[in-house]
Amino acid sequence: MVNIGLIGFGTVSAGTVKILYNNISRIEEKVGTKVKIKKICDQDITTPRGVRVPHELLTTDINEILNDPDIDIIVELIGGDATAKKIIFSAIKKGKHVVTANKAILAKNWDSIFTMARKNKVLVYFEASVGGGIPVLQALNEGLAANRIESILGILNGTTNYILTKMTKESKSFKEALREAQREGFAERDPSLDIGGIDTKQKLSILSSIAFGSWMKPDDIYCEGINHIEQQDIKYGREEFGYILKLLGINKITKDKIETRVHPTFIPEGHLLTLVDNEFNAIYITGDAVGETMYYGKGAGQMSAASAVVSDIIYLARHVANKTAGNVPYVHYDRKKILYINSMDNVQTKYYLRFTTVDRPGVLAKISGILGKNKVSIASCYQKERAVAKEVPIIMVTHKATEGNMRKALREIDRLPVIKAKSKLIRIEEDS
Amino acid sequence: MVNIGLIGFGTVSAGTVKILYNNISRIEEKVGTKVKIKKICDQDITTPRGVRVPHELLTTDINEILNDPDIDIIVELIGGDATAKKIIFSAIKKGKHVVTANKAILAKNWDSIFTMARKNKVLVYFEASVGGGIPVLQALNEGLAANRIESILGILNGTTNYILTKMTKESKSFKEALREAQREGFAERDPSLDIGGIDTKQKLSILSSIAFGSWMKPDDIYCEGINHIEQQDIKYGREEFGYILKLLGINKITKDKIETRVHPTFIPEGHLLTLVDNEFNAIYITGDAVGETMYYGKGAGQMSAASAVVSDIIYLARHVANKTAGNVPYVHYDRKKILYINSMDNVQTKYYLRFTTVDRPGVLAKISGILGKNKVSIASCYQKERAVAKEVPIIMVTHKATEGNMRKALREIDRLPVIKAKSKLIRIEEDS
Repeated sequence: MVNIGLIGFGTVSAGTVKILYNNISRIEEKVGTKVKIKKICDQDITTPRGVRVPHELLTTDINEILNDPDIDIIVELIGGDATAKKIIFSAIKKGKHVVTANKAILAKNWDSIFTMARKNKVLVYFEASVGGGIPVLQALNEGLAANRIESILGILNGTTNYILTKMTKESKSFKEALREAQREGFAERDPSLDIGGIDTKQKLSILSSIAFGSWMKPDDIYCEGINHIEQQDIKYGREEFGYILKLLGINKITKDKIETRVHPTFIPEGHLLTLVDNEFNAIYITGDAVGETMYYGKGAGQMSAASAVVSDIIYLARHVANKTAGNVPYVHYDRKKILYINSMDNVQTKYYLRFTTVDRPGVLAKISGILGKNKVSIASCYQKERAVAKEVPIIMVTHKATEGNMRKALREIDRLPVIKAKSKLIRIEEDS
Repeated sequence: MVNIGLIGFGTVSAGTVKILYNNISRIEEKVGTKVKIKKICDQDITTPRGVRVPHELLTTDINEILNDPDIDIIVELIGGDATAKKIIFSAIKKGKHVVTANKAILAKNWDSIFTMARKNKVLVYFEASVGGGIPVLQALNEGLAANRIESILGILNGTTNYILTKMTKESKSFKEALREAQREGFAERDPSLDIGGIDTKQKLSILSSIAFGSWMKPDDIYCEGINHIEQQDIKYGREEFGYILKLLGINKITKDKIETRVHPTFIPEGHLLTLVDNEFNAIYITGDAVGETMYYGKGAGQMSAASAVVSDIIYLARHVANKTAGNVPYVHYDRKKILYINSMDNVQTKYYLRFTTVDRPGVLAKISGILGKNKVSIASCYQKERAVAKEVPIIMVTHKATEGNMRKALREIDRLPVIKAKSKLIRIEEDS
């Protein structure tokens, strides 16, 4: 018999209970023994959750779970930072295995969590922390174990993908799309962690730490959100150049250094990632042996996240039943291994640029002169809606250039008197 | 120390050796102990394979591997039927774990292989048998373990997908595209197993047996290949209706019965599967909790298949090192569980139809009359290139109808004197 203690009885937790109740016979067949929810802890144990649980299962006292010697697996689903961290660390120290969906805590405490887990011979599983129900962490950690990972491109955040989809397909403004996402339950009232790219950064940190066998700290990842994205750039990018805008988390190995960055990215139509819409997520992973692969599914939602939590429970429970849990760590990494991160200045991409200029002869010559001087070469260029207003947008796509040169050129261009607003820059990914 | 014996030293096997040699330190870290190739058996041990192996590793005598008590894992990569089957069964009986890519043997002997494996407490892993390097079997078996699988749509065969891509994107005829596939190494000299759909059927049998927890015999799967596909239907389907043609393996649960079928299928543009081109494969899986998911990657090729073989080896070797291999079977299924298969006559889809008729008034009325009588209702209809030739094609898309009614109507229509060639039928999938 494997006993489970659930901490937090919110949406995902209630979904987890639903699956465990409805599919118990199939799940026990997979585990090879009985699986039982022994306790559920939450501050609020009276509000209905859409699933019936016997009243004696519920408690408001966390210690009833942490100190119960019969409980083998603790499922932490309270979210947030401080308390959840205490619970995870305390569970590990008490020799209990942990399932969590808490990407923030994992990304920020990777080293201490897995060092402590190894020391205490417990397993920490966290499939639901990245990509909702998509079993991408298992794929990366085990299915692609034979590979040296060469790149990861991920649409990792359902909120921003929903907003960008509405802006692309329904020509909504950022504000309108955000408001709709909030109305539909795809964005929180304070959406800053999502639209600022922080959530994507934490998930990329987890993917990277698995892929490269050492902790990729969130602070080492360049991060830019979608707050500054305007409808016109989505429109120009698509109509003039055939690009679709997505917020991507990107890792690439170039010359043994790792590029690691989160930013809005133009991708050419026809690439699989351009069809990943609304709350869906997808992770495009290239390995040296397997080549290109992709994993797609819902990145948010009660039941998809619960699907990942329960698959972790099944996996772990099987180890517990076999008395093998903790013999080999789930995540293999080397504390001493140094990840050499390529500085953002050296990263090379193509760029989409939009300049807001006065409508006067010689402006384009000035801009392209400064770009050329900084080794940025123009691939194509449009001057839009000439002479309608006093200010005209010039949009262009460059060949590959380093970020350092590009920024230097933009700073210089933005100082020109003919430039009427801060120039816009969106990076382009075309290689994979 | 975990010892491996490789049987068969062809392309995938050489790729497996390459990965094991090049990435050995990372692999051993994941396994938690030393991993060694102890013997490689092939009839031909002189032809170079593009990888250097010590000569004492090579043998032509299979028993040097099967009877070596130090060898824990046997990797069967000789392909074909009779000998490979003997090797797999003999290895299992001798208590050795098996890694194989042999979809034909697995699909045809599922029951006896896994019954015997359970009895002998050994594990049989076979990730490379479906979807090349895509870790889809692990995803289905473990990552989605919490789910009741509702449907599977798979592009499972690289050869036919390459041919259909060439027919779609370069307007080639079936014969031209097949010849090109053969030239490029994507089709064998005798391509009948691929283009006839047999390979897809075997892979669907494996996916189904995992998904539904009981053996889905290949003979229970309806199977139609792409041999009869003409360029004009690909063109009409795309230009008139926005459909792309793919050979799909399909499973769907409808009213507790399973539909299971392999046939060329029109999918609407904008669906992810329509962007899966050339030798790539993708498997679109819907679960009751997780919703829609997709797994994408190369379905063929030395290194992608070797990637899957090595991930199986790593996984198994870890169990061997832990002395836990075989405690719990990898595949959980119930011999006594009966799969209720929906007869093809009761399956409902939309249909694309092409009739070759004489150009005479009243023909369309006759055809639609017969369709209507058989409860097939027309969604849209085009009469192409009227009056250029004496024979004119009428193409149409129907609403959903049962296959039984559709076939009955077609038989009746094909008996009309105004019909000049056997009418063409291609099924359409639009729901997922």
